Amino acid sequence: MSATLAIREIGADGFARAWPVFRAVVAAGDTYSYPPDIDEAQARAMWTTPPSRCFVAERDGDVLGVYMLRPNQPGLGDHVANCGYMVAPHARGQGIASAMCTHSLEEARRAGFSAMQYNFVVSSNETAVRLWQRHGFAIVGRVPGAFRHAHLGSTDVLVMHRTL
Amino acid sequence: MSATLAIREIGADGFARAWPVFRAVVAAGDTYSYPPDIDEAQARAMWTTPPSRCFVAERDGDVLGVYMLRPNQPGLGDHVANCGYMVAPHARGQGIASAMCTHSLEEARRAGFSAMQYNFVVSSNETAVRLWQRHGFAIVGRVPGAFRHAHLGSTDVLVMHRTL
Repeated sequence: MSATLAIREIGADGFARAWPVFRAVVAAGDTYSYPPDIDEAQARAMWTTPPSRCFVAERDGDVLGVYMLRPNQPGLGDHVANCGYMVAPHARGQGIASAMCTHSLEEARRAGFSAMQYNFVVSSNETAVRLWQRHGFAIVGRVPGAFRHAHLGSTDVLVMHRTL
Repeated sequence: MSATLAIREIGADGFARAWPVFRAVVAAGDTYSYPPDIDEAQARAMWTTPPSRCFVAERDGDVLGVYMLRPNQPGLGDHVANCGYMVAPHARGQGIASAMCTHSLEEARRAGFSAMQYNFVVSSNETAVRLWQRHGFAIVGRVPGAFRHAHLGSTDVLVMHRTL
C-alpha cells in the first residue's frame, strides 16, 4: 500500500531537503542547463528567492520531487508563468512529474497567471515532452543546438506553452 | 557632415549616460517587458552586472543607443549569447540598431559564443523583426500573447536565432 504523494510549498529554509534531488538531476547534465557542479546556495537562491516559489513532492517523509514557479518575465510579460520540475532518479515512472505539473497549473491559476511557458525543454527528453503535451502544452518554438547534452552533445531545445 | 557612430563597452559606473535611452524605451511599453516605471538602479543591475555586458552607441558625445550582451543560459547553455538593444526615440531610422547588432555579433564571436538567441522580440515591432532577419536571424518560435503591449494589448512574442 503506497502512501499518498503530498505537494507543499517551501521557503529558502526548507530547501536543504530538496537539494539532493536538485543536485542529482543537474549533475546528470541531460535536462537542465544549470552548471552540473552548481552548489546548494546558488540553487536555493534561484529557486526560492521571490518572485520564484518552490514546492516539494513528498511521500513517507521523503522528498521525491521539487518544482519552481515564477513569472517568466517581469513587468509587461508577468502574466505568463514559468516552471521547472525535477524528480529524484530513483522515483521516476511513478507519476510524480505529472502530479507536480497539475499542482503547478493550479497554483499558477490561483496566483493570477493566464498562461504558462517552458523556455528550455531539452528535445531528447521525450518522456517530458510527451508529458507536457498531455498536460495541454504545445511546442511553440525549437532552438537548434541550444543545449550541450552530457552524452548526446548539441541538442535542440523546445519552447512549450499553454493558456490557463 | 555627420560624425561617426562610436560603440564602446561601459561598466556600471558609466550606465548613467545610457539611462535616458533605457528609460524612454521601456516607458513606451511597446518593445520590452521590463516594468515601464523601472528605476535606474534596477536597469543598471540587469544590464551591467556580469556576466551581462553593456555597450553604448555615441555620436558627438551623445548616447543614442545602448545594448546588452550576455549568455542566454548558464552552464550547458552558455554557448548561446543573448542581446537586447535600445535606440533613443529621437535617433530612430539612422541605422543605430543595425550598427549595434553588427557590433554585438562581433563581440559575441570574440567572446566565444557559437550562436545568438533573442527570447522576446515583440511581433508588432516589425521594423526590428525585419532588421534581425537581415542580420541572419530566423524566427524559431512564436509565443502567443506573451506581451501586454501598451497600445495593442495582448501581443505575440518571437524567439529568433542565428549561429555565429
